[in-house]
Amino acid sequence: MPFLDHLADEGVTEVVFAGAIRRPRLDPALFDPRTMQIVPRILNAMQTGDDAALREVLAVFEESGLSVRAIDQILPSLVPAEGLLVGEPSERDRQDADYAARIVAGLGPLDIGQGAIVAQGLCLAVEALPGTDAMLEFAALHRDLRPNAKGAKGVLYKAPKPAQDRRIDLPTIGPDTVRRAAAADLAGIAWEAGGVILLERERTLADARAAGLFLWARG
Amino acid sequence: MPFLDHLADEGVTEVVFAGAIRRPRLDPALFDPRTMQIVPRILNAMQTGDDAALREVLAVFEESGLSVRAIDQILPSLVPAEGLLVGEPSERDRQDADYAARIVAGLGPLDIGQGAIVAQGLCLAVEALPGTDAMLEFAALHRDLRPNAKGAKGVLYKAPKPAQDRRIDLPTIGPDTVRRAAAADLAGIAWEAGGVILLERERTLADARAAGLFLWARG
Repeated sequence: MPFLDHLADEGVTEVVFAGAIRRPRLDPALFDPRTMQIVPRILNAMQTGDDAALREVLAVFEESGLSVRAIDQILPSLVPAEGLLVGEPSERDRQDADYAARIVAGLGPLDIGQGAIVAQGLCLAVEALPGTDAMLEFAALHRDLRPNAKGAKGVLYKAPKPAQDRRIDLPTIGPDTVRRAAAADLAGIAWEAGGVILLERERTLADARAAGLFLWARG
Repeated sequence: MPFLDHLADEGVTEVVFAGAIRRPRLDPALFDPRTMQIVPRILNAMQTGDDAALREVLAVFEESGLSVRAIDQILPSLVPAEGLLVGEPSERDRQDADYAARIVAGLGPLDIGQGAIVAQGLCLAVEALPGTDAMLEFAALHRDLRPNAKGAKGVLYKAPKPAQDRRIDLPTIGPDTVRRAAAADLAGIAWEAGGVILLERERTLADARAAGLFLWARG
Protein backbone atom coordinates (compact mmCIF):
# COMPACT_ATOMS: atom_id res chain seq x y z
CA MET A 1 0.00 0.00 0.00
CA PRO A 2 2.92 2.43 0.44
CA PHE A 3 3.21 2.17 -3.34
CA LEU A 4 -0.39 3.35 -3.81
CA ASP A 5 0.18 6.16 -1.28
CA HIS A 6 3.25 7.18 -3.20
CA LEU A 7 1.24 7.43 -6.42
CA ALA A 8 -1.31 9.63 -4.66
CA ASP A 9 1.45 11.83 -3.21
CA GLU A 10 2.87 12.32 -6.67
CA GLY A 11 -0.52 13.42 -7.98
CA VAL A 12 -1.03 10.34 -10.14
CA THR A 13 -4.70 9.80 -10.98
CA GLU A 14 -4.52 7.35 -13.83
CA VAL A 15 -2.59 4.11 -14.27
CA VAL A 16 -2.05 1.79 -17.16
CA PHE A 17 -0.80 -1.78 -16.82
CA ALA A 18 1.93 -3.03 -19.08
CA GLY A 19 4.41 -5.86 -19.08
CA ALA A 20 4.43 -9.50 -18.17
CA ILE A 21 2.64 -10.62 -15.06
CA ARG A 22 4.03 -13.40 -12.96
CA ARG A 23 2.32 -14.98 -10.01
CA PRO A 24 4.55 -13.88 -7.14
CA ARG A 25 5.74 -16.17 -4.41
CA LEU A 26 4.54 -13.96 -1.59
CA ASP A 27 6.64 -13.61 1.53
CA PRO A 28 4.36 -12.36 4.32
CA ALA A 29 7.38 -11.25 6.36
CA LEU A 30 7.97 -8.46 3.85
CA PHE A 31 4.50 -6.91 4.07
CA ASP A 32 3.72 -3.75 5.97
CA PRO A 33 0.55 -3.99 8.08
CA ARG A 34 -1.76 -2.30 5.55
CA THR A 35 -0.56 -4.43 2.66
CA MET A 36 -1.13 -7.44 4.86
CA GLN A 37 -4.82 -6.55 4.95
CA ILE A 38 -5.28 -7.00 1.23
CA VAL A 39 -3.19 -10.17 1.01
CA PRO A 40 -5.99 -12.61 1.83
CA ARG A 41 -8.22 -11.35 -0.97
CA ILE A 42 -5.40 -11.43 -3.54
CA LEU A 43 -4.35 -14.90 -2.39
CA ASN A 44 -7.93 -16.16 -2.60
CA ALA A 45 -8.35 -14.69 -6.03
CA MET A 46 -5.03 -16.12 -7.20
CA GLN A 47 -6.27 -19.58 -6.43
CA THR A 48 -9.31 -19.22 -8.65
CA GLY A 49 -7.38 -18.38 -11.80
CA ASP A 50 -5.94 -15.51 -13.74
CA ASP A 51 -9.11 -13.57 -14.43
CA ALA A 52 -10.22 -13.41 -10.83
CA ALA A 53 -6.73 -12.52 -9.57
CA LEU A 54 -6.34 -9.69 -12.05
CA ARG A 55 -9.81 -8.31 -11.37
CA GLU A 56 -8.81 -8.08 -7.71
CA VAL A 57 -5.63 -6.23 -8.63
CA LEU A 58 -7.62 -3.71 -10.66
CA ALA A 59 -10.13 -3.34 -7.80
CA VAL A 60 -7.33 -2.55 -5.33
CA PHE A 61 -6.07 0.27 -7.58
CA GLU A 62 -9.56 1.63 -8.22
CA GLU A 63 -10.54 1.57 -4.56
CA SER A 64 -7.59 3.82 -3.81
CA GLY A 65 -9.00 6.40 -6.24
CA LEU A 66 -6.88 5.65 -9.31
CA SER A 67 -8.49 5.29 -12.69
CA VAL A 68 -7.21 2.30 -14.64
CA ARG A 69 -6.90 2.97 -18.37
CA ALA A 70 -6.56 0.49 -21.22
CA ILE A 71 -3.26 0.52 -23.07
CA ASP A 72 -4.90 1.29 -26.42
CA GLN A 73 -6.38 4.46 -24.92
CA ILE A 74 -2.85 5.66 -24.17
CA LEU A 75 -0.82 4.24 -27.07
CA PRO A 76 -3.23 3.02 -29.74
CA SER A 77 -0.34 2.29 -32.12
CA LEU A 78 0.74 -0.59 -29.84
CA VAL A 79 -2.46 -2.52 -30.59
CA PRO A 80 -2.71 -3.16 -34.35
CA ALA A 81 -6.08 -2.93 -36.04
CA GLU A 82 -7.17 -5.49 -38.59
CA GLY A 83 -4.75 -6.17 -41.43
CA LEU A 84 -1.80 -8.13 -42.71
CA LEU A 85 1.44 -6.70 -41.34
CA VAL A 86 3.90 -9.09 -42.96
CA GLY A 87 3.52 -11.83 -45.58
CA GLU A 88 0.38 -13.59 -46.64
CA PRO A 89 -1.26 -16.64 -45.02
CA SER A 90 -2.28 -19.40 -47.41
CA GLU A 91 -5.85 -20.67 -47.53
CA ARG A 92 -4.76 -23.58 -45.32
CA ASP A 93 -3.05 -21.19 -42.88
CA ARG A 94 -6.31 -19.26 -42.67
CA GLN A 95 -8.17 -22.45 -41.81
CA ASP A 96 -5.60 -23.22 -39.12
CA ALA A 97 -5.99 -19.68 -37.73
CA ASP A 98 -9.80 -20.10 -37.73
CA TYR A 99 -9.59 -23.31 -35.75
CA ALA A 100 -7.01 -21.85 -33.34
CA ALA A 101 -9.28 -18.84 -32.80
CA ARG A 102 -12.20 -21.16 -32.01
CA ILE A 103 -10.00 -23.01 -29.52
CA VAL A 104 -8.87 -19.85 -27.73
CA ALA A 105 -12.46 -18.58 -27.59
CA GLY A 106 -13.64 -21.99 -26.35
CA LEU A 107 -10.96 -22.05 -23.64
CA GLY A 108 -12.07 -18.64 -22.42
CA PRO A 109 -14.67 -19.69 -19.86
CA LEU A 110 -12.15 -22.24 -18.48
CA ASP A 111 -9.63 -19.47 -17.67
CA ILE A 112 -6.64 -21.41 -19.04
CA GLY A 113 -4.71 -19.24 -21.47
CA GLN A 114 -4.71 -16.87 -24.40
CA GLY A 115 -3.18 -18.87 -27.21
CA ALA A 116 -3.09 -22.06 -29.24
CA ILE A 117 -1.03 -23.55 -32.05
CA VAL A 118 -2.77 -25.37 -34.90
CA ALA A 119 -1.17 -27.07 -37.91
CA GLN A 120 -2.99 -28.94 -40.68
CA GLY A 121 -6.24 -28.80 -38.73
CA LEU A 122 -4.70 -30.32 -35.59
CA CYS A 123 -4.06 -28.64 -32.27
CA LEU A 124 -0.35 -28.94 -31.44
CA ALA A 125 -0.47 -26.96 -28.20
CA VAL A 126 -2.69 -24.92 -25.92
CA GLU A 127 -1.40 -22.10 -23.77
CA ALA A 128 -1.68 -22.70 -20.03
CA LEU A 129 0.03 -21.24 -16.95
CA PRO A 130 3.58 -21.53 -18.39
CA GLY A 131 2.71 -19.01 -21.10
CA THR A 132 3.27 -18.46 -24.81
CA ASP A 133 7.05 -18.96 -24.90
CA ALA A 134 6.73 -22.31 -23.13
CA MET A 135 3.95 -23.33 -25.54
CA LEU A 136 6.11 -22.44 -28.54
CA GLU A 137 9.04 -24.44 -27.14
CA PHE A 138 6.67 -27.37 -26.67
CA ALA A 139 5.48 -27.08 -30.27
CA ALA A 140 9.09 -26.91 -31.48
CA LEU A 141 9.88 -30.09 -29.57
CA HIS A 142 6.95 -31.89 -31.20
CA ARG A 143 7.02 -30.31 -34.64
CA ASP A 144 7.48 -33.70 -36.33
CA LEU A 145 3.92 -34.66 -35.43
CA ARG A 146 2.37 -32.80 -38.34
CA PRO A 147 0.84 -35.54 -40.50
CA ASN A 148 2.17 -34.11 -43.75
CA ALA A 149 5.80 -33.01 -43.47
CA LYS A 150 5.44 -30.87 -46.60
CA GLY A 151 1.98 -29.53 -45.72
CA ALA A 152 0.90 -26.38 -43.91
CA LYS A 153 3.33 -25.47 -41.13
CA GLY A 154 0.82 -24.10 -38.68
CA VAL A 155 -0.20 -20.93 -36.96
CA LEU A 156 0.23 -19.44 -33.52
CA TYR A 157 -2.96 -17.59 -32.59
CA LYS A 158 -3.33 -15.22 -29.65
CA ALA A 159 -6.37 -13.42 -28.30
CA PRO A 160 -7.64 -12.08 -25.01
CA LYS A 161 -10.02 -14.38 -23.18
CA PRO A 162 -13.56 -13.44 -24.20
CA ALA A 163 -14.56 -12.34 -20.70
CA GLN A 164 -11.31 -10.81 -19.44
CA ASP A 165 -10.91 -7.17 -18.45
CA ARG A 166 -8.98 -5.66 -21.37
CA ARG A 167 -7.27 -3.11 -19.16
CA ILE A 168 -4.81 -5.71 -17.91
CA ASP A 169 -3.02 -8.78 -19.21
CA LEU A 170 -3.57 -8.25 -22.92
CA PRO A 171 -1.64 -10.87 -24.87
CA THR A 172 1.65 -9.60 -26.28
CA ILE A 173 3.66 -10.37 -29.39
CA GLY A 174 7.25 -9.27 -29.99
CA PRO A 175 10.63 -10.32 -31.36
CA ASP A 176 10.83 -13.25 -28.92
CA THR A 177 7.51 -14.56 -30.18
CA VAL A 178 8.75 -14.37 -33.76
CA ARG A 179 12.01 -16.11 -32.91
CA ARG A 180 10.26 -18.96 -31.11
CA ALA A 181 7.54 -19.30 -33.76
CA ALA A 182 10.28 -19.63 -36.39
CA ALA A 183 12.05 -22.24 -34.25
CA ALA A 184 8.77 -24.18 -34.11
CA ASP A 185 8.63 -24.07 -37.92
CA LEU A 186 5.32 -22.22 -38.01
CA ALA A 187 3.97 -20.42 -41.07
CA GLY A 188 3.01 -17.35 -39.11
CA ILE A 189 1.37 -15.61 -36.19
CA ALA A 190 -2.22 -14.44 -36.16
CA TRP A 191 -4.08 -12.62 -33.41
CA GLU A 192 -7.31 -10.88 -32.59
CA ALA A 193 -7.13 -7.43 -34.17
CA GLY A 194 -7.44 -4.76 -31.48
CA GLY A 195 -6.82 -7.26 -28.69
CA VAL A 196 -3.07 -7.88 -28.70
CA ILE A 197 -0.08 -5.66 -27.96
CA LEU A 198 2.66 -5.65 -30.58
CA LEU A 199 5.98 -4.79 -28.95
CA GLU A 200 8.98 -3.33 -30.81
CA ARG A 201 6.91 -3.11 -33.96
CA GLU A 202 9.66 -2.38 -36.47
CA ARG A 203 11.99 -5.05 -35.21
CA THR A 204 9.20 -7.61 -34.88
CA LEU A 205 8.07 -6.97 -38.46
CA ALA A 206 11.63 -7.09 -39.81
CA ASP A 207 12.36 -10.32 -37.93
CA ALA A 208 9.16 -11.92 -39.21
CA ARG A 209 9.97 -10.88 -42.76
CA ALA A 210 13.49 -12.31 -42.44
CA ALA A 211 12.14 -15.57 -41.00
CA GLY A 212 9.43 -15.89 -43.65
CA LEU A 213 6.59 -15.72 -41.12
CA PHE A 214 3.35 -13.86 -41.74
CA LEU A 215 1.99 -11.49 -39.09
CA TRP A 216 -1.75 -11.07 -39.26
CA ALA A 217 -4.06 -8.96 -37.09
CA ARG A 218 -7.14 -11.07 -37.86
CA GLY A 219 -10.55 -9.38 -37.82
CA MET B 1 -8.19 -53.65 -47.64
CA PRO B 2 -6.25 -56.94 -47.95
CA PHE B 3 -6.13 -56.82 -44.16
CA LEU B 4 -9.94 -56.66 -43.94
CA ASP B 5 -10.25 -59.51 -46.48
CA HIS B 6 -7.85 -61.54 -44.40
CA LEU B 7 -10.02 -61.05 -41.30
CA ALA B 8 -13.09 -62.23 -43.26
CA ASP B 9 -11.17 -65.27 -44.55
CA GLU B 10 -10.27 -66.21 -41.01
CA GLY B 11 -13.91 -66.05 -39.95
CA VAL B 12 -13.42 -62.95 -37.77
CA THR B 13 -16.74 -61.15 -37.16
CA GLU B 14 -15.89 -58.87 -34.24
CA VAL B 15 -12.98 -56.53 -33.65
CA VAL B 16 -11.84 -54.52 -30.68
CA PHE B 17 -9.40 -51.63 -30.88
CA ALA B 18 -6.55 -51.41 -28.41
CA GLY B 19 -3.23 -49.63 -28.19
CA ALA B 20 -1.89 -46.24 -29.07
CA ILE B 21 -2.97 -44.61 -32.29
CA ARG B 22 -0.54 -42.51 -34.26
CA ARG B 23 -1.38 -40.47 -37.28
CA PRO B 24 0.49 -42.27 -40.03
CA ARG B 25 2.61 -40.56 -42.63
CA LEU B 26 0.89 -42.18 -45.60
CA ASP B 27 2.94 -43.24 -48.60
CA PRO B 28 0.54 -43.60 -51.55
CA ALA B 29 3.10 -45.71 -53.43
CA LEU B 30 2.52 -48.53 -50.93
CA PHE B 31 -1.27 -48.77 -51.39
CA ASP B 32 -3.00 -51.46 -53.38
CA PRO B 33 -5.78 -50.13 -55.65
CA ARG B 34 -8.67 -50.89 -53.30
CA THR B 35 -6.97 -49.32 -50.31
CA MET B 36 -6.31 -46.31 -52.50
CA GLN B 37 -10.06 -45.83 -52.83
CA ILE B 38 -10.56 -45.26 -49.11
CA VAL B 39 -7.50 -43.03 -48.73
CA PRO B 40 -9.23 -39.76 -49.66
CA ARG B 41 -11.92 -40.15 -47.02
CA ILE B 42 -9.43 -41.07 -44.31
CA LEU B 43 -7.16 -38.19 -45.33
CA ASN B 44 -10.07 -35.76 -45.31
CA ALA B 45 -11.21 -36.98 -41.92
CA MET B 46 -7.66 -36.79 -40.54
CA GLN B 47 -7.58 -33.13 -41.33
CA THR B 48 -10.69 -32.40 -39.32
CA GLY B 49 -9.38 -33.85 -36.07
CA ASP B 50 -9.16 -37.03 -34.08
CA ASP B 51 -12.84 -37.73 -33.61
CA ALA B 52 -13.70 -37.51 -37.29
CA ALA B 53 -10.67 -39.58 -38.35
CA LEU B 54 -11.46 -42.34 -35.87
CA ARG B 55 -15.13 -42.41 -36.81
CA GLU B 56 -14.05 -43.02 -40.41
CA VAL B 57 -11.77 -45.84 -39.31
CA LEU B 58 -14.66 -47.50 -37.47
CA ALA B 59 -16.94 -46.98 -40.47
CA VAL B 60 -14.45 -48.73 -42.78
CA PHE B 61 -14.41 -51.78 -40.51
CA GLU B 62 -18.19 -51.82 -40.11
CA GLU B 63 -18.85 -51.45 -43.82
CA SER B 64 -16.85 -54.59 -44.41
CA GLY B 65 -19.23 -56.49 -42.10
CA LEU B 66 -17.18 -56.51 -38.91
CA SER B 67 -18.78 -55.57 -35.62
CA VAL B 68 -16.66 -53.20 -33.54
CA ARG B 69 -16.86 -53.92 -29.80
CA ALA B 70 -15.88 -51.70 -26.90
CA ILE B 71 -12.93 -52.86 -24.82
CA ASP B 72 -14.96 -52.98 -21.61
CA GLN B 73 -17.34 -55.45 -23.25
CA ILE B 74 -14.40 -57.80 -23.77
CA LEU B 75 -12.23 -57.15 -20.72
CA PRO B 76 -14.23 -55.14 -18.19
CA SER B 77 -11.44 -55.46 -15.62
CA LEU B 78 -9.28 -53.14 -17.76
CA VAL B 79 -11.64 -50.21 -17.20
CA PRO B 80 -11.89 -49.48 -13.47
CA ALA B 81 -15.24 -48.49 -12.00
CA GLU B 82 -15.53 -45.67 -9.49
CA GLY B 83 -13.24 -45.87 -6.50
CA LEU B 84 -9.88 -45.04 -4.99
CA LEU B 85 -7.28 -47.57 -6.14
CA VAL B 86 -4.24 -46.15 -4.33
CA GLY B 87 -3.82 -43.43 -1.71
CA GLU B 88 -6.21 -40.65 -0.83
CA PRO B 89 -6.54 -37.25 -2.52
CA SER B 90 -6.67 -34.28 -0.17
CA GLU B 91 -9.57 -31.83 -0.28
CA ARG B 92 -7.36 -29.51 -2.36
CA ASP B 93 -6.45 -32.38 -4.72
CA ARG B 94 -10.17 -33.04 -5.17
CA GLN B 95 -10.72 -29.42 -6.11
CA ASP B 96 -7.85 -29.63 -8.61
CA ALA B 97 -9.39 -32.81 -10.06
CA ASP B 98 -12.79 -31.08 -10.30
CA TYR B 99 -11.31 -28.18 -12.24
CA ALA B 100 -9.27 -30.47 -14.48
CA ALA B 101 -12.41 -32.51 -15.22
CA ARG B 102 -14.25 -29.32 -16.17
CA ILE B 103 -11.37 -28.38 -18.47
CA VAL B 104 -11.32 -31.77 -20.23
CA ALA B 105 -15.12 -31.68 -20.62
CA GLY B 106 -14.93 -28.11 -21.92
CA LEU B 107 -12.21 -29.02 -24.42
CA GLY B 108 -14.35 -31.85 -25.75
CA PRO B 109 -16.24 -29.97 -28.47
CA LEU B 110 -12.89 -28.49 -29.62
CA ASP B 111 -11.47 -31.99 -30.29
CA ILE B 112 -8.09 -31.20 -28.71
CA GLY B 113 -7.22 -33.89 -26.20
CA GLN B 114 -8.26 -36.06 -23.31
CA GLY B 115 -6.31 -34.69 -20.39
CA ALA B 116 -5.24 -31.72 -18.31
CA ILE B 117 -2.99 -31.01 -15.33
CA VAL B 118 -4.15 -28.67 -12.58
CA ALA B 119 -2.27 -27.61 -9.46
CA GLN B 120 -3.49 -25.18 -6.80
CA GLY B 121 -6.44 -24.19 -8.95
CA LEU B 122 -4.27 -23.34 -11.97
CA CYS B 123 -4.05 -25.17 -15.26
CA LEU B 124 -0.41 -26.21 -15.83
CA ALA B 125 -1.00 -28.07 -19.10
CA VAL B 126 -3.62 -29.22 -21.54
CA GLU B 127 -3.29 -32.34 -23.64
CA ALA B 128 -3.07 -31.72 -27.38
CA LEU B 129 -1.78 -33.73 -30.36
CA PRO B 130 1.55 -34.69 -28.68
CA GLY B 131 -0.35 -36.71 -26.05
CA THR B 132 -0.28 -37.38 -22.32
CA ASP B 133 3.40 -38.24 -21.97
CA ALA B 134 4.42 -35.02 -23.70
CA MET B 135 2.02 -33.04 -21.49
CA LEU B 136 3.51 -34.61 -18.35
CA GLU B 137 7.05 -33.79 -19.52
CA PHE B 138 5.92 -30.22 -20.11
CA ALA B 139 4.45 -30.04 -16.61
CA ALA B 140 7.67 -31.46 -15.16
CA LEU B 141 9.67 -28.78 -16.98
CA HIS B 142 7.46 -26.04 -15.52
CA ARG B 143 6.73 -27.50 -12.11
CA ASP B 144 8.23 -24.48 -10.34
CA LEU B 145 5.31 -22.33 -11.48
CA ARG B 146 3.02 -23.48 -8.70
CA PRO B 147 2.42 -20.35 -6.62
CA ASN B 148 2.93 -22.12 -3.30
CA ALA B 149 5.94 -24.42 -3.36
CA LYS B 150 4.66 -26.25 -0.30
CA GLY B 151 1.01 -26.33 -1.42
CA ALA B 152 -0.99 -28.92 -3.33
CA LYS B 153 1.14 -30.64 -5.96
CA GLY B 154 -1.52 -31.06 -8.58
CA VAL B 155 -3.49 -33.70 -10.41
CA LEU B 156 -3.38 -35.28 -13.85
CA TYR B 157 -6.94 -35.89 -15.02
CA LYS B 158 -7.92 -38.03 -17.99
CA ALA B 159 -11.31 -38.66 -19.57
CA PRO B 160 -12.74 -39.50 -22.97
CA LYS B 161 -14.01 -36.54 -24.93
CA PRO B 162 -17.71 -36.14 -24.16
CA ALA B 163 -18.81 -36.88 -27.73
CA GLN B 164 -16.23 -39.47 -28.79
CA ASP B 165 -17.07 -43.02 -29.81
CA ARG B 166 -15.99 -45.09 -26.81
CA ARG B 167 -15.14 -48.09 -28.94
CA ILE B 168 -11.85 -46.54 -29.98
CA ASP B 169 -9.18 -44.27 -28.51
CA LEU B 170 -10.14 -44.53 -24.84
CA PRO B 171 -7.54 -42.74 -22.73
CA THR B 172 -5.02 -45.07 -21.11
CA ILE B 173 -3.08 -45.02 -17.87
CA GLY B 174 -0.17 -47.32 -17.04
CA PRO B 175 3.26 -47.52 -15.43
CA ASP B 176 4.65 -44.87 -17.81
CA THR B 177 1.93 -42.45 -16.76
CA VAL B 178 2.77 -43.03 -13.10
CA ARG B 179 6.48 -42.56 -13.69
CA ARG B 180 5.99 -39.30 -15.56
CA ALA B 181 3.39 -38.01 -13.10
CA ALA B 182 5.88 -38.63 -10.29
CA ALA B 183 8.60 -36.82 -12.27
CA ALA B 184 6.23 -33.87 -12.61
CA ASP B 185 5.80 -33.86 -8.81
CA LEU B 186 2.06 -34.42 -8.96
CA ALA B 187 -0.05 -35.61 -6.04
CA GLY B 188 -1.90 -38.16 -8.10
CA ILE B 189 -3.85 -39.25 -11.15
CA ALA B 190 -7.61 -39.07 -11.45
CA TRP B 191 -9.79 -40.16 -14.34
CA GLU B 192 -13.37 -40.65 -15.40
CA ALA B 193 -14.54 -43.94 -13.87
CA GLY B 194 -15.57 -46.35 -16.61
CA GLY B 195 -13.91 -44.27 -19.31
CA VAL B 196 -10.19 -44.99 -19.04
CA ILE B 197 -8.13 -48.14 -19.62
CA LEU B 198 -5.76 -49.09 -16.80
CA LEU B 199 -2.85 -51.08 -18.23
CA GLU B 200 -0.70 -53.46 -16.19
CA ARG B 201 -2.92 -52.89 -13.21
CA GLU B 202 -0.78 -54.54 -10.52
CA ARG B 203 2.42 -52.87 -11.59
CA THR B 204 0.73 -49.50 -12.04
CA LEU B 205 -0.80 -49.68 -8.56
CA ALA B 206 2.48 -50.81 -6.99
CA ASP B 207 4.43 -48.06 -8.74
CA ALA B 208 1.91 -45.42 -7.66
CA ARG B 209 2.08 -46.63 -4.08
CA ALA B 210 5.88 -46.55 -4.15
CA ALA B 211 5.87 -43.03 -5.64
CA GLY B 212 3.28 -41.74 -3.16
CA LEU B 213 0.73 -40.93 -5.87
CA PHE B 214 -2.99 -41.51 -5.52
CA LEU B 215 -4.91 -43.27 -8.29
CA TRP B 216 -8.57 -42.35 -8.39
CA ALA B 217 -11.32 -43.54 -10.72
CA ARG B 218 -13.52 -40.48 -10.15
CA GLY B 219 -17.28 -40.89 -10.43
